[in-house]
Amino acid sequence: MAEMHGRRRAALRRLLAERELDTLLVTNLLNVRYLTGFTGSNAALLVTRDDAVFCTDGRYDTSSASQVPDLERVIERDCGLALAARATGRIGFESDHVTVDGLADLSEAARAELVRAPGLVAELRVIKDETEIEALRMACAAADRALAALIEHGGLRPGRTEREVARALDDGLRDQGATGPAFATIVAAGEHSAIPHHEPTDAALKAGDLVKMDFGALVDGYHSDMTRTVVLGRAADWQTEMYELVAAAQAAGRAALRPGTPLAGVDDAARSVIAAAGRAEQFPHGVGHGVGLEIHEAPALNKAGTGTLAAGMAVTVEPGVYVPGQGGVRIEDTLIVREGAPELLTLTTKELVVV
Amino acid sequence: MAEMHGRRRAALRRLLAERELDTLLVTNLLNVRYLTGFTGSNAALLVTRDDAVFCTDGRYDTSSASQVPDLERVIERDCGLALAARATGRIGFESDHVTVDGLADLSEAARAELVRAPGLVAELRVIKDETEIEALRMACAAADRALAALIEHGGLRPGRTEREVARALDDGLRDQGATGPAFATIVAAGEHSAIPHHEPTDAALKAGDLVKMDFGALVDGYHSDMTRTVVLGRAADWQTEMYELVAAAQAAGRAALRPGTPLAGVDDAARSVIAAAGRAEQFPHGVGHGVGLEIHEAPALNKAGTGTLAAGMAVTVEPGVYVPGQGGVRIEDTLIVREGAPELLTLTTKELVVV
Repeated sequence: MAEMHGRRRAALRRLLAERELDTLLVTNLLNVRYLTGFTGSNAALLVTRDDAVFCTDGRYDTSSASQVPDLERVIERDCGLALAARATGRIGFESDHVTVDGLADLSEAARAELVRAPGLVAELRVIKDETEIEALRMACAAADRALAALIEHGGLRPGRTEREVARALDDGLRDQGATGPAFATIVAAGEHSAIPHHEPTDAALKAGDLVKMDFGALVDGYHSDMTRTVVLGRAADWQTEMYELVAAAQAAGRAALRPGTPLAGVDDAARSVIAAAGRAEQFPHGVGHGVGLEIHEAPALNKAGTGTLAAGMAVTVEPGVYVPGQGGVRIEDTLIVREGAPELLTLTTKELVVV
Repeated sequence: MAEMHGRRRAALRRLLAERELDTLLVTNLLNVRYLTGFTGSNAALLVTRDDAVFCTDGRYDTSSASQVPDLERVIERDCGLALAARATGRIGFESDHVTVDGLADLSEAARAELVRAPGLVAELRVIKDETEIEALRMACAAADRALAALIEHGGLRPGRTEREVARALDDGLRDQGATGPAFATIVAAGEHSAIPHHEPTDAALKAGDLVKMDFGALVDGYHSDMTRTVVLGRAADWQTEMYELVAAAQAAGRAALRPGTPLAGVDDAARSVIAAAGRAEQFPHGVGHGVGLEIHEAPALNKAGTGTLAAGMAVTVEPGVYVPGQGGVRIEDTLIVREGAPELLTLTTKELVVV
C-alpha cells in the first residue's frame, strides 16, 4: 500500500511542477487519505518536490505510525498550521477546501507565499486506479447481495414500513462485509416514490406500490450507489409505462458513457428520452455524478457539466420520473468508464421486478 | 416546530443587528437545519432583518415544502449563489465555512458588499434549547440501553472480535430507535485499548483484556458520545489502578462543569489528577468537546480553550490514560451544563465493570 500511495504522491508532484509550486498543503482529509492511507479524523499533508510530511494529533499517534509508516510524522492538534509553518517556496493550498477564515490563519503561520491551488488531488482522484475500482466493485457487489437477500427473504411485502425495509437493507450491507451504508438509505413507497430524496417513514408498504430503493455500501472508504424501483404485486399500466421510459432513458445514459463524451452529453442522452415522452419537467435532477471516496464527487453529470469523460472515471447514471401524488421511478447504476463500453458494477437486474 | 425555528431566526436577527449586517447568507448545512428544520443534503438560507428565504435543489422540492412550510422557497442547484444574488445591503457570509474559492464565486453573484461573519449561528447553537436537550437525552439513553443489552446478552466475551462487538453495539443503537451510530464506533481490546482512536479489527477479545468502547447514538440529528472501559474476567492490579485514576480525573472534570468556569479549567481539573500520578504524558488529548448537531462542536474543552462555560452547553468529559503495549482506559460522559451541578445524560455506571 505504501508503494501505491507513493505513486499517487509522485503523480501529484508532476502537477505541482506544472503549476510552478514548490509544495502543496493538503488539508482536505479525503485527499490526505488518498495520498497516505490515513483514515483518522484529523490530519494534513505537506507534499514537497521530493518528499512529504504528515501531521495528525495525539489521538492518532499510534495508528498513524502503522498506517503511514513511510513518511515523517508531526503530532500537532492544528495540522494545517503546523505544516504551513514548515513549508517553503511557493506553497499551494486547497482553495476549494480551505475556508476564508482558515486562510487568514494559514497566512499568519506560513513564512512563504500561499497560492491558490484548487482541485489538484481531485484531478488525480477523478481517474480511479485498479485498487480503487476493486473497492468500488466490492461496494457495488455488497449492495447487489443485500438487495437480493432482502427480496429472497420476503423482506419486501405489504405491511412492512419504509423504515423497516431501510434497516433491513442497511443490516444486509453490513452482513455482506460493508462498513455500513454509503449514505442514508432511501426507501420510498407508493406516493412517496414521487419524492426524489425521501427519508424513510413509518408508512407501511401496500400492494400495488412502487417501492424505490436508493442505497449503497461503504467498503474501504469507497461508496457504491444504486437505485432500483420494484412493484409490490401486479404492476398497473401507468407504472409499467413509467418504468419502461426511465429504463430506456437510463440505458441511453449508459450508452453515452464513452471516453470523450461531453459530461453534459450524458445528461442530454437520458433527458431527451424523457423529454420526448413529454415528461421533461418530471425529471428535476442531473443524470449522475462521480463516486469514490465521496458519495458525490467529480465529474458532475448534469446540464451544467463541462469537460469530457475519460477512461477510469467512476460515475452513476440515474434518471428518474416523478409525479407528485402518484409515484415515481428511478433506476441507477454505478459504472466505470472504459475504452469501449463502460464496466457495469451494480449487477442487479433492471427488468421491472414484481415482488 | 416552525415556531421554534422562527424563534431561532429571531435570535439570529438580534446578532445581525449587533454586527450591523442587513442579511446573513447561511451556507453551512447544519446551520440551515438548525434555523429551518430542513434535513436534506443541499440548501442555503438568507436571513434578512425581517424575513428569510430558503433554497434547495429539485430533488428536495417536495420534502422541503413540508419541512420548511413557513418560508419562501427557491429551487436552484447552487443555493449559495442563488441567494447571494437576491441579497441587499451589508451581506454577512459564514467565513468559517465558505471556502476561498467559494467566496470568489459569491462575490461575482452578489450585487452588494460581502462581510465576514463567522460563528453567528454557532453562537446560538452552543447553548442548547430544551428541544435539543431532549434529543441529546434520547441519544444518550439509546447508547446506555445498547450497552446494557450488549452486556446482558453476553455480547462481551472472550473469542468475539472487536468488529463483532462494534457491530452488535451499532445494531443495538438502531434497536433502541437511533438513526444509527453518531460516529464510527470504537471497540479496542487488550493492547489496542492503548490506542486512543482505534478502528475495530478482527482481533478477538481475551480474558483479562481491558475493552474500551467509545460510541454514541444519532437521534433527530443530535449526537451522543460515551466511553466505557470494562475488564473481561478478573482485573489485574495495574488495570484497577489505571481505572481508578481515570475515574477520579473524570469526576474532577465533571465537577468543574459550572457556568463561568474557564474552558481550559475543565481540562486542567481532570489533567492535574492524572499529572499528580506522574502520568501526564499518558493523556495526549483534550478532556472534552461540545456535542449537538455535530459530534465535535463548540466549546472545545482543552488547554487552548478560551471563554467560559455557560448553562445549556452540551459537552463531553473524557480523560484517558494510555500505555502503549499494555492498555488504556477512557471514561466519557455527555452532560449539560446547568446552574449548579451539571445534568448527566449518559447514565451507565462508571464503576469498573467486570464481565
